[in-house]
Amino acid sequence: MASLDALLRPRSVAVIGASRTRGTIGAEIFHNLIAHGFTGAVYPVHPEAHAVQGVRAFPSVTAIPDKIDLAVIVVPAARVSAVIDDCVAAGVGAVLIITAGFAETGEDGKALQDSVLARVRAAGMRMVGPNCLGILNADPAIALDATFAPTWPPHGGVAFSSQSGAVGLAILDYAKELGIGVHQFVSIGNKADVSGNDLIAHWGADPAVNVVLLYLESFGNPINFMRIATEVSRRKPIVAVKAGRTAAGARAASSHTGSLAGLEVAVDALIGQAGVIRTDTIEELFDVAMVLAHQPVPRGGRVAILTNAGGPGIMATDACESHGLTLAELSADTTARLRALLPPEASVKNPVDMIASAGPAAYEQALPLLLADDGVDAVIVLFVPPVGTQAAAVAAAIQRGGAGATKPILTCFMGMHGVPAALSSLREGKFPSYAFPEAAAIALARVARYGAWLARGEGAIPALPDVDPARARAAIAAAQAAGARGWLPADAVREVLAAYGIPMASSVVAPTADVAVAAARAAGYPVAIKLASDTITHKTDVGGVVLGVVDDAGVRAAFDGIRARLDAAGHAGSMTGVIVQPMIGRGVETFVGGTRTPDFGPLIAFGTGGVNVELWKDVVFRVHPLTDLDAREMLDQIRGRALLDGFRGGPIADRAALVDALLRVDRMFGDLPELAELDINPLIARAPGAGAIAVDARLRLATASAGHAGHAARSR
Amino acid sequence: MASLDALLRPRSVAVIGASRTRGTIGAEIFHNLIAHGFTGAVYPVHPEAHAVQGVRAFPSVTAIPDKIDLAVIVVPAARVSAVIDDCVAAGVGAVLIITAGFAETGEDGKALQDSVLARVRAAGMRMVGPNCLGILNADPAIALDATFAPTWPPHGGVAFSSQSGAVGLAILDYAKELGIGVHQFVSIGNKADVSGNDLIAHWGADPAVNVVLLYLESFGNPINFMRIATEVSRRKPIVAVKAGRTAAGARAASSHTGSLAGLEVAVDALIGQAGVIRTDTIEELFDVAMVLAHQPVPRGGRVAILTNAGGPGIMATDACESHGLTLAELSADTTARLRALLPPEASVKNPVDMIASAGPAAYEQALPLLLADDGVDAVIVLFVPPVGTQAAAVAAAIQRGGAGATKPILTCFMGMHGVPAALSSLREGKFPSYAFPEAAAIALARVARYGAWLARGEGAIPALPDVDPARARAAIAAAQAAGARGWLPADAVREVLAAYGIPMASSVVAPTADVAVAAARAAGYPVAIKLASDTITHKTDVGGVVLGVVDDAGVRAAFDGIRARLDAAGHAGSMTGVIVQPMIGRGVETFVGGTRTPDFGPLIAFGTGGVNVELWKDVVFRVHPLTDLDAREMLDQIRGRALLDGFRGGPIADRAALVDALLRVDRMFGDLPELAELDINPLIARAPGAGAIAVDARLRLATASAGHAGHAARSR
Repeated sequence: MASLDALLRPRSVAVIGASRTRGTIGAEIFHNLIAHGFTGAVYPVHPEAHAVQGVRAFPSVTAIPDKIDLAVIVVPAARVSAVIDDCVAAGVGAVLIITAGFAETGEDGKALQDSVLARVRAAGMRMVGPNCLGILNADPAIALDATFAPTWPPHGGVAFSSQSGAVGLAILDYAKELGIGVHQFVSIGNKADVSGNDLIAHWGADPAVNVVLLYLESFGNPINFMRIATEVSRRKPIVAVKAGRTAAGARAASSHTGSLAGLEVAVDALIGQAGVIRTDTIEELFDVAMVLAHQPVPRGGRVAILTNAGGPGIMATDACESHGLTLAELSADTTARLRALLPPEASVKNPVDMIASAGPAAYEQALPLLLADDGVDAVIVLFVPPVGTQAAAVAAAIQRGGAGATKPILTCFMGMHGVPAALSSLREGKFPSYAFPEAAAIALARVARYGAWLARGEGAIPALPDVDPARARAAIAAAQAAGARGWLPADAVREVLAAYGIPMASSVVAPTADVAVAAARAAGYPVAIKLASDTITHKTDVGGVVLGVVDDAGVRAAFDGIRARLDAAGHAGSMTGVIVQPMIGRGVETFVGGTRTPDFGPLIAFGTGGVNVELWKDVVFRVHPLTDLDAREMLDQIRGRALLDGFRGGPIADRAALVDALLRVDRMFGDLPELAELDINPLIARAPGAGAIAVDARLRLATASAGHAGHAARSR
Repeated sequence: MASLDALLRPRSVAVIGASRTRGTIGAEIFHNLIAHGFTGAVYPVHPEAHAVQGVRAFPSVTAIPDKIDLAVIVVPAARVSAVIDDCVAAGVGAVLIITAGFAETGEDGKALQDSVLARVRAAGMRMVGPNCLGILNADPAIALDATFAPTWPPHGGVAFSSQSGAVGLAILDYAKELGIGVHQFVSIGNKADVSGNDLIAHWGADPAVNVVLLYLESFGNPINFMRIATEVSRRKPIVAVKAGRTAAGARAASSHTGSLAGLEVAVDALIGQAGVIRTDTIEELFDVAMVLAHQPVPRGGRVAILTNAGGPGIMATDACESHGLTLAELSADTTARLRALLPPEASVKNPVDMIASAGPAAYEQALPLLLADDGVDAVIVLFVPPVGTQAAAVAAAIQRGGAGATKPILTCFMGMHGVPAALSSLREGKFPSYAFPEAAAIALARVARYGAWLARGEGAIPALPDVDPARARAAIAAAQAAGARGWLPADAVREVLAAYGIPMASSVVAPTADVAVAAARAAGYPVAIKLASDTITHKTDVGGVVLGVVDDAGVRAAFDGIRARLDAAGHAGSMTGVIVQPMIGRGVETFVGGTRTPDFGPLIAFGTGGVNVELWKDVVFRVHPLTDLDAREMLDQIRGRALLDGFRGGPIADRAALVDALLRVDRMFGDLPELAELDINPLIARAPGAGAIAVDARLRLATASAGHAGHAARSR
């Protein structure tokens, strides 16, 4: 892949379709390039005009007497192919296609886009678009505004990729309003060539970028995203809004971009595993960006709140606690120092309420005390201007009190729309300021979660030397040779699980008492004897379950007893025999499984077992491949996790065995591309050290055309 | 209670503690009264000054030669008592105490406040405060600004009560910025006399008020709140932020105001039952108020989205679906008309994306088509200004297209900070406008929920003529006479439930097979026979459960079989007999209960039964008394509601019997004040028409000092 320099740091730009009519896209882009001080040369290309907006024009890019790094194309879609030919002939380095009317409009547009892309690639060029707002590089050394947006943001360390031009317009406007410094902005449009992934990798390597922001509607290549974003997140934060969260939103996104509907659990897993900070809205995206632009990432989630009024302190406290932060327990030393500093009516417990009389000096002196407390990871400073207190003076005091801090400081000046000078002064001092306490708390919570991801390490993918893929493949091949398609027969499932070291309880259907006795001896006493019937599903209701049978006589008695109860209840003839299973003993029912998705590869699932998976939807997902850390985290993330640790006197689960089973299932999906879906439900976790055993399992193979089948099949 | 007119519509005001030093509270309040054009007379009271800010001053309120409706008190706390004596002597109508240093500071302050309140009440005056920001009435006929806030909002139909002065400052500022017209604003401070409840009742009766907004930190009298707010909500919307949601937030609220920590489930139940719209933040409060101020309440939750860009449409769709709204299915007629109106690249499915070329005419013509569709309850209009399109012209077009609509219209002009003229014009046309699509969707969702509450009717509290409180009281008295305290013995619980028409399954411990046979005959076959043991809790694991026993011989066989299996497993001697229960048959395990709270009265609970209540916390609460409608809604609001309707081939529950049981438990709490806590778990709901039967129940009486005990006991 060629570098993106011709796109992002060109020294010469041709605008093909530059216009003299202000208000058209071709005119606004050309105007922006000139007006915002591009440091290279800009050449308008126009079929007739001698000059465009005062600059000498050329009839074709081939006529320009200079090497062109970047051609910006704003001609109608039907003329783009011819223009690309010109660009190839002129040896242009890269093209930016603003023009709409390509893949987003349907099959014909897609064909046109493919043909353009093929020519661009053949020539070794890179391309942004088509159907986009453009590219902006606010670095004063370049000062490239190849967009038709009216806004030129201040320069800074934020890089932004947007899949929607309209959202891009709002983004630039919002960045300027909040004073967030932008390094580069790319509207990727249909992302025929340059994708969000390319930009993340590029910005990951650019020392001028300290935060990467993404507006996503779809993932072109989620597996690449995972790899690239995970690597970049270790060095600098990535913050993303992924639109199309809900089913209806995904349909809207799909009709909008022609991209596949997002599989929401996969998106969540992907983003979470890659350390990407996900926000619900663009507004929250910027709230988070304001922290990351200049504040350190906190080492933990313990927050101190400093305020001059109770109400906002409560609001901040609520928001912190609801979003996973905790209110720091201040040390005795800190509270003693605060007590000495503040009037007796002040509250020196967290939230620290200095009451309305607190002036700039109180803020300046109290803030360092909180920052110095080892139990504090971050400080939220709230200020409501009472009569007679200068907001600007308090803002300056906060800057002095927080100077050189190694913990993040977020501020909220409530009711401050009338005092913007204080806010600008805070922002110049690099302290983020919010209109409401909740916004500060939520932004801090998201950054703290990123901090936890950084601290957690990477985990390892274990070797599992005992797995035997050849044995599993042989079992599958044998089943297929015997005619199996889709769901595998039970004995083949058992064999595949065995090949991956996942034991499964035996289960034998015995048509007679003699066969049942033989099966029970083989399984080992005690056993469970259960009605086998094609018509009766609720065995317990008809007295069809006898547990803890300890000997041959017991098996015969259970067999006869079940038959007698069925006869008595008028169900004579509906018994085909009994099922003989060894008693698994006490254990915790869990669910372990996986499904192969067309876009995201295998998703590995863990949940509470039995009907809980479906009723409570208590299941968490991770994208393959799993590290040991991922698997351990999955156990802690189900809502019913209390069940694993002896809930209400219940059994305690062998967590290590569950982690091991998850890693083995993950390996299975990696080894066997034909494996479409696996559900082990229940996987019974026995006491710690005693392992886990599958009682029931289903395994589905992809059919010839069923690369996408796993997608539809998992509706839970 | 005297009317609030002397407080809210005074004709003469004395400011006791008026100051000549601008920047002090005593000066700012006096200044605001004069500067904002109070239509009555203002008299400064100052111990020495001849005049304050140019107005003739008096040494005492008794020296003023005019009848004073409202005395505003800003003297130090220590002097307030003496000033109150003067006010009484002068025949003042009402007092507003701005001064802090009362109940919020501790016991001494509380005593001072109580003494002031006693004198105020003895004189027949009303009082707002102490420790507050003041009172504002923006009605031009009054123009009272008795606050020290710098902001004077425009006049309109919104009334606002704030329990925090600091939040009040922010509120007034925000209202002015958004152009929300305020009728009256009251900062209630410590609410020693006038409470939020008084104001809700007052504003409910004031035709000039069309929306009531509340910032709450605590409920003084939740039962009054319920009664008043429910009645007012039927006529006009009440929107509330309740701070102190989380445990830490409640602690902060408690230390701030000295009020009791909120019992969050009770607060939620109370607010929901009263039809009050609850928002999480002040920002959302205003987002909702912007809709309610001038738009109709929607008749349903089906939303049409009209946009000129895909990205914002997806964002709005996601937010609608995540907050309980649905995307409207447009009629064939509507889509045909849109198709005729819009270019072929436009999407005429909802969200309707008119693409970037859409101008004012498209908005003006498409909006009425969506409004006319019977499947649409509300419209969200999004606009991102592309090059060459006039935002102001689109705003005007939306106003024309939406004129006279009987469905709410919300707008979002993204990236519009640069074009405020368009927004003001929309706001003058009474169309709310938001900076982001999500804010519009969330506000609409909250209003739609209020619409559903209005439409749902009030329900009825059924007569239940067969309940027998005397029988229940007798059972309780007998148990107490026998020494029972706190938890009642099982037979007394059974008797109380029976008195309220809630049947309970029998359960007999039989030490011998003969006793078991007799018990089984009494209970009626089929029965369940279960191990009775003081040492073995997991009966199933030792073969200690035999279900569906149909005759005497079966009972004996089960008794002997359990003993034999215990002996074989080495547990000989741990069997004390068997438990004989009738087979309840198939049914759904539910939880029905109640707890009496000190502040909110009885809370009635419904949930999925067994361990689900504790593990999944799948339980919903309502405040006593329940209507039939409340009880039916509770069934639909548990997360595991699918269990009630035959989940995965499981039994279907007798919903009517569950509703009946809830109403009977509710009546029990109403009749028996000594009842502190009741848990029926499980209550087995049989098939529709077959009723519900309690299998286990616990009932606790309040002990002498335990008016508050229910509060602490329910920690789930």
